[in-house]
Amino acid sequence: MGSLEGERTTLGWAATDPSGILAPHTYTLRNTGPEDVFINVISCGICHTDLHQVKNDLGMSRYPMVPGHEVVGEVVEVGSDVSKFRVGDIVGVGCLVGCCRNCSPCNRDIEQYCSKKIWTYNDVYTDGKPTQGGFAKSMVVDQKFVAKIPEGMSPEQAAPLLCAGVTVYSPLSHFGLKQSGLRGGILGLGGVGHMGVKIAKAMGHHVTVISSSDKKKQEALEDLGADDYLVSSDQAKMQEAADSLDYILDTVPAFHPLEPYLTLLKLDGKLILMGVINTPMQFITPLLMLGRKTITGTFIGSMKETEEVLQFCKEKGVTSTIEVVKMDYVNTAMERLEKNDVRYRFVVDVAGSKLGQ
Amino acid sequence: MGSLEGERTTLGWAATDPSGILAPHTYTLRNTGPEDVFINVISCGICHTDLHQVKNDLGMSRYPMVPGHEVVGEVVEVGSDVSKFRVGDIVGVGCLVGCCRNCSPCNRDIEQYCSKKIWTYNDVYTDGKPTQGGFAKSMVVDQKFVAKIPEGMSPEQAAPLLCAGVTVYSPLSHFGLKQSGLRGGILGLGGVGHMGVKIAKAMGHHVTVISSSDKKKQEALEDLGADDYLVSSDQAKMQEAADSLDYILDTVPAFHPLEPYLTLLKLDGKLILMGVINTPMQFITPLLMLGRKTITGTFIGSMKETEEVLQFCKEKGVTSTIEVVKMDYVNTAMERLEKNDVRYRFVVDVAGSKLGQ
Repeated sequence: MGSLEGERTTLGWAATDPSGILAPHTYTLRNTGPEDVFINVISCGICHTDLHQVKNDLGMSRYPMVPGHEVVGEVVEVGSDVSKFRVGDIVGVGCLVGCCRNCSPCNRDIEQYCSKKIWTYNDVYTDGKPTQGGFAKSMVVDQKFVAKIPEGMSPEQAAPLLCAGVTVYSPLSHFGLKQSGLRGGILGLGGVGHMGVKIAKAMGHHVTVISSSDKKKQEALEDLGADDYLVSSDQAKMQEAADSLDYILDTVPAFHPLEPYLTLLKLDGKLILMGVINTPMQFITPLLMLGRKTITGTFIGSMKETEEVLQFCKEKGVTSTIEVVKMDYVNTAMERLEKNDVRYRFVVDVAGSKLGQ
Repeated sequence: MGSLEGERTTLGWAATDPSGILAPHTYTLRNTGPEDVFINVISCGICHTDLHQVKNDLGMSRYPMVPGHEVVGEVVEVGSDVSKFRVGDIVGVGCLVGCCRNCSPCNRDIEQYCSKKIWTYNDVYTDGKPTQGGFAKSMVVDQKFVAKIPEGMSPEQAAPLLCAGVTVYSPLSHFGLKQSGLRGGILGLGGVGHMGVKIAKAMGHHVTVISSSDKKKQEALEDLGADDYLVSSDQAKMQEAADSLDYILDTVPAFHPLEPYLTLLKLDGKLILMGVINTPMQFITPLLMLGRKTITGTFIGSMKETEEVLQFCKEKGVTSTIEVVKMDYVNTAMERLEKNDVRYRFVVDVAGSKLGQ
């Protein structure tokens, strides 16, 4: 406990320019400070955001960049003030590793809305060093941003819950949409959307997947357990389903018209946007006013919600649908993710990839 | 009590074509049915919607049309099953005179969201006859859609509360925004907006009026009691006020960018739209997601909320700022309203206009 050795090096896979190609990269990790947990990474999910970041799609990338923010690992060392974790614990790290701890969101345990939050990678830590993510042998993380993985949940299963899972859990929890019997819609069936179907089903909701084509109909109904499937261009079916949903989790990360989906909502229904889209979205006011409907958006989830969604999935037996790959496949995985050629989340078996020291 | 005389004629001022010019018009009223209240009109407010309806701006006008949906009158006869009102009571009628009573909104006492609601005028009643509004000597209205005016509140003061007042009260009540200490914004300072300032102030809120120019600054601060005034084109001040408001009541009935106002909202802040605007409104998703902000809209208010806002204004001494006119001035008033040349609501002194029988 409390060992404060000197800086150590670790090995990750980093992008070094906007080609986004990842290759082995050695870098130093800070000392394990009193509040820190030193983790050997076991598994790390690949999120669509990783793709955007390594390719500098948001114009804010710093290289070299080790991506990965759905990290599960084993605790190998803890700082002197760490009481929550012990060596040998299996733990998770999500999108954030720091926040100011003083602002209103921090005081309300919704640190994801802190304006001084620190991203798990592609950010600068309080010590001035770049943060690096989970496509790496090890990480040092403040205990506040570490969650215990429930006993019996496998690391590769847990990984997608740390971003995709909590991203859908957070709005359902915050907006009072956890009780059974609700009717939900899931728009977009990628990594986040597929967790949306599973978590909403586990809450006892009637879940409709809404898609632009019928390509994913069979898998949505049979593999993911959705109750219904709507093709958004089928105007007759869309009309039939008008005023039927309590909420829609809209995970589509590109411009799309909102009117068809607002129409599907019941009185007081909520359209919850989760995709960062810088093209202006459009709606007409009567569609909201005449049904007191809401357009809102949420952003990942808090550490408290991360712990909740892990526990929820453990209790309900919710598993994510993943394809496990080794690190030397990561560039191919990124290419396939770009083409949506994955059912539904890649998880890198980091421990099994035998990264060097 | 319970008198069921034959049909009677009444006299109102009606538009007969999309010129919107109002002129005297005689028509019949239905018998006072068991649930009905027969009212002699005393005062009737003029709402912007009246202007749209008489000119067929929404393409759904039926003529001859007697407008007016902020109606205060005296009960002169009640049906046999009416227990809530007595002859001599001063009562109000708002935007609606009917609903299905069976649907989910009706069962939840939010009949304004009933899909079979019947408008006070420019609609068809259950007996197949056109409904006609309050620019008339008298009306027959189902008791469900009649509210008692509190003792001591003058009819001309009460009239604007029946549409403008309840329109701002309803979202504040529904969205949990009644407690004191909140910071609210009011966008647009017309009939509805001015009630927004007064009602929000009476709730103990810090109220900022937001306008495209500084023309109304003095009156907003001095006459209406607003705490602050922001000119939306003043980027420095707008930036200073970022993340400061719990809600904005957006009463502007024409296209406007939403981004500046979403930016003013705090975490979890609500932009509440009240203007029917068929030009698509626009926003980008990060503005919502990164502050869990909400765009929503509400539509007038329920009869329950109408009774509440009347009582609230009575208790808090909230008065509306009105210009009282006689019926023979109504066409001029409509012209002036079209140019926003009124502070802030015209109310027709119907009883004092000596309409014929």
